[in-house]
Amino acid sequence: MDTTDFHFNLLVNAALSVFGFLICYKVIPPFGEMFIQAHLFGIDQSKTTKAKVPEALGVICGAIFLIIMFLFIPVPFYKHLYYTDNYKSFPHNEYIEYIAALLSICCMIFLGFADDVLNLKWRHKVMLPTIASLPLLMVYLVNVGSTTIVVPKPFRLYLGHDVDLSVLYYVYMGMLAVFCTNAINILAGVNGLEAGQSFVIAVSVVIFNILELSGCCTEAHVFSLYFMMPYIGVCLALLIHNWYPSRVFVGDTFCYFSGMTFAVVAILGHFSKTMLLFFIPQVVNFVYSVPQIFKFVPCPRHRLPRYNSKTDKVEMSCTKYKYSHLNIIGKLCVTIFRLLRVLDVKDNVGEDGQYTECNNMTLINLILKFTGPLHERTLVIILMAIQVLCSGIAFFIRYHLAKLFYD
Amino acid sequence: MDTTDFHFNLLVNAALSVFGFLICYKVIPPFGEMFIQAHLFGIDQSKTTKAKVPEALGVICGAIFLIIMFLFIPVPFYKHLYYTDNYKSFPHNEYIEYIAALLSICCMIFLGFADDVLNLKWRHKVMLPTIASLPLLMVYLVNVGSTTIVVPKPFRLYLGHDVDLSVLYYVYMGMLAVFCTNAINILAGVNGLEAGQSFVIAVSVVIFNILELSGCCTEAHVFSLYFMMPYIGVCLALLIHNWYPSRVFVGDTFCYFSGMTFAVVAILGHFSKTMLLFFIPQVVNFVYSVPQIFKFVPCPRHRLPRYNSKTDKVEMSCTKYKYSHLNIIGKLCVTIFRLLRVLDVKDNVGEDGQYTECNNMTLINLILKFTGPLHERTLVIILMAIQVLCSGIAFFIRYHLAKLFYD
Repeated sequence: MDTTDFHFNLLVNAALSVFGFLICYKVIPPFGEMFIQAHLFGIDQSKTTKAKVPEALGVICGAIFLIIMFLFIPVPFYKHLYYTDNYKSFPHNEYIEYIAALLSICCMIFLGFADDVLNLKWRHKVMLPTIASLPLLMVYLVNVGSTTIVVPKPFRLYLGHDVDLSVLYYVYMGMLAVFCTNAINILAGVNGLEAGQSFVIAVSVVIFNILELSGCCTEAHVFSLYFMMPYIGVCLALLIHNWYPSRVFVGDTFCYFSGMTFAVVAILGHFSKTMLLFFIPQVVNFVYSVPQIFKFVPCPRHRLPRYNSKTDKVEMSCTKYKYSHLNIIGKLCVTIFRLLRVLDVKDNVGEDGQYTECNNMTLINLILKFTGPLHERTLVIILMAIQVLCSGIAFFIRYHLAKLFYD
Repeated sequence: MDTTDFHFNLLVNAALSVFGFLICYKVIPPFGEMFIQAHLFGIDQSKTTKAKVPEALGVICGAIFLIIMFLFIPVPFYKHLYYTDNYKSFPHNEYIEYIAALLSICCMIFLGFADDVLNLKWRHKVMLPTIASLPLLMVYLVNVGSTTIVVPKPFRLYLGHDVDLSVLYYVYMGMLAVFCTNAINILAGVNGLEAGQSFVIAVSVVIFNILELSGCCTEAHVFSLYFMMPYIGVCLALLIHNWYPSRVFVGDTFCYFSGMTFAVVAILGHFSKTMLLFFIPQVVNFVYSVPQIFKFVPCPRHRLPRYNSKTDKVEMSCTKYKYSHLNIIGKLCVTIFRLLRVLDVKDNVGEDGQYTECNNMTLINLILKFTGPLHERTLVIILMAIQVLCSGIAFFIRYHLAKLFYD
C-alpha cells in the first residue's frame, strides 16, 4: 500500500468524522422532539423531575455513521475507479470487507431500533447478532481464512507452537459480536455511561491502531481507523447530550451499534484479543452479573442504582429472596462473592425475617458498595476513570506482559 | 456457470422461501400485539369498527427476508469455500453483488421502519434512498461499468446505434431506487393494495427471469431469482394478513423494502427497462398524482377514498380550492385532465360558490370515477386485475413490440 495514499484517505475520513460530529450534535435535539411524539421516551429514575427524556437517540448516530461511511467508501478506491479497465484492477477483496462490515453494522442498528420500539425477547437479542455476523464471517473465511492461534509459551509443552481452532474460531468470532453488543448494554443505568465507555474504548482502539500503523498489518489498522474515527465523531456528539443530566437517552440501538462496530473492526483487523483487553470493565461486569443473568439469583427488571431524592445521591439497589429457595449454583455464587467481600448481603430481613437481601450484581453497585452513596455525576466520572485506567492496563498487557507469553 | 449447479441452488432457495413464508405467516399475528403496545397502530378509515390495527408489519417481512438471505448466501459459494485455496478461486466480484444488494435493502428497511415510527420529512424520503443505493452503484461501476444504451431504431438516424450516457446512467439508476420505493408507497390506501401489487410485480419478475434463464444473461437472472423467491414468500404471508378486512397494515417499511428489492435486482440484473414495464399502474398513478405531489393543486394529508358507512362502500375523495388561487401550472393540469375526462370537477361549490372541487388525483379515485362507489374488496380486486393485465401488456411489449424498436 502506498503510504501517502492512506494518509490522504485518513485525512478525508477525519474531516468527514468532524462533519459527522457537527451534524449529529446539531440534529439530536430536534429529533428528540420527534421521538417523544413517537412515544419513544423514558423517565429518568434518578432525578426528582419526571420529565419525558427521548429514548433511543443512538439510532440517529447510527444513521449518520452509515451515511458518512457510504460517502467515504469511494475515497480509498478512487484510483481504481479512475482507470477504464476497472474490472481487473479493482480490489474486490478489499471492497467487500467494507460492504460486509457495513451490512453487519446496519443490521445491528436496525435490530437495536426494533428492540427499542418493540422490546424484543432475549432469544432474539442473542440469535440476531449471530445471524447478522454471518456475511462478515464468510468474508473472513475467504479473505483471511486463518483459524490458527499461537499458543502462549506456558502451554506450548502440551499444545505445541500453534493450534488450528478450525470451526471453533468462527464460533468464537460469532460470539464476540454477541458479547460486544450485550456487554455494553448491561453496563448501563447512569447518565452518560453507555456513550462514555464506548467513547473511551473507541479512543483506545484508535491509539492502538496508530501505534501499529507502521507495523506488519498496516492495512488492517487503516481499515479500523476508517471505521473508528467516524464512530468517535457521532459517539462524542451523543455523549455530550447524554452526559449528566441527560437530555436524551441512547437506547439499546446505540449499544448494539457500538458493539457491532467494535466486533467488526476487531474481526477484520485481526486484533480481537486486544479489543477484549479494552473491554476489561465490561468483562468484569459480565462475570459479576452471571448469577443474575442466568437466573441463579433472582434478577429484577432493572438493576440500576436506587436514587435517594433526600440526599440527591444514588445508592446500591438490592434484590430480595429466600436463601433456601436458591438452587445449588445460586447458593455457591452468593457464598463465593461473600467470601471475596464483593457482595453486600443482609440476612433475616423482611417481615418474618425469612428473606435475604443482597445488592444487584453490577459493577456500578459494586463501586457503590465500596464508596457508599454518591452523586450520579461523581459515580459516572469514577466509572469513566476506571474505563480509562483499564485501557492503560490493556496497553501495558499488550505491549509488555504479552512478551512473557509470546515471542 | 454449471447448469445443474444453479438448479440445485434454486431448489434450496425455493425451500427457504417456503420456510420464510411459513415463519412469516405464523409470527405476524403475535408480533401484531407487540406493535400495538409500542403505539404502532392505525385505525382503518374504511371500516365501521374503530379497532386498533397494528401498523408497519412490513418490518417483520423485511427482517425474515434478510435472515433467509443470510442463511442462503453460502449456498451458491459452497464449492469455492470447500477448497482450501479459497482466496484465489473465490469469485469476490459475484459475492460482492449479494452483499451490496443486501446492504441497500437492509438500509431501506431500517429507513422505512424509522419513517413509520418517527414520521420523517419528505426530504429524508428522497435523500436517504439515494445514499442507500451508493454502494450498489459502485458495485455496478466496477463489476459492469457499461453505461451505454442501445438507441431504438426510429432515433438511430439522429443518435447513432448506441449512446454512452456516462454519469447520467448512474443518476438514472439512483432515481430508479427512489422511484420504486416511493411509487408503491403512493399507490396505497385500500386493504391489501401495497402487498398485492408488490406480489404481482414479483411474480411477473420471476416469470420473466425463468423465461430468460436459457438466454444470454443466465447469471443475472439466477441472481434475481435468488432475491425474488424469498421476497414472494414473505410478501404473500403479509398479503394474507393484510387482505380485506386487514388484520395488520404493512407500513412504509414494506413499501421501501419492496421498492429497493425491485430496484436492486433490476440494476444488478440489467433489466431496469423491463422492470419499469411491470410498474405501469404505478407510473400512471405517479404521473396522474404529479400536480398534487408538487403542490400545483392542493394536496390533503391523506388521499385515500372516502368510506360511506351507510352503503359500506368507498367513494372518490376530493380536494377543494379556489381555482383563481392556483398557479399557471396548476390551472393547466386541471384543464388538461378535464379535457381528457380523467378528472371529476365540480365548479361553484362551497358556501359562497367560490370554490372548485375535484377528486384527489390517484389511480384509485380514477377507477371510482368510472365505476361509481364500490365495496372495498371489489375495488382492491379490480386494482389487482389491472396490475395483472398490465403485466400481460408488459410481456407483450417486451417480447413483441420491442422487436420493432430493437434488433
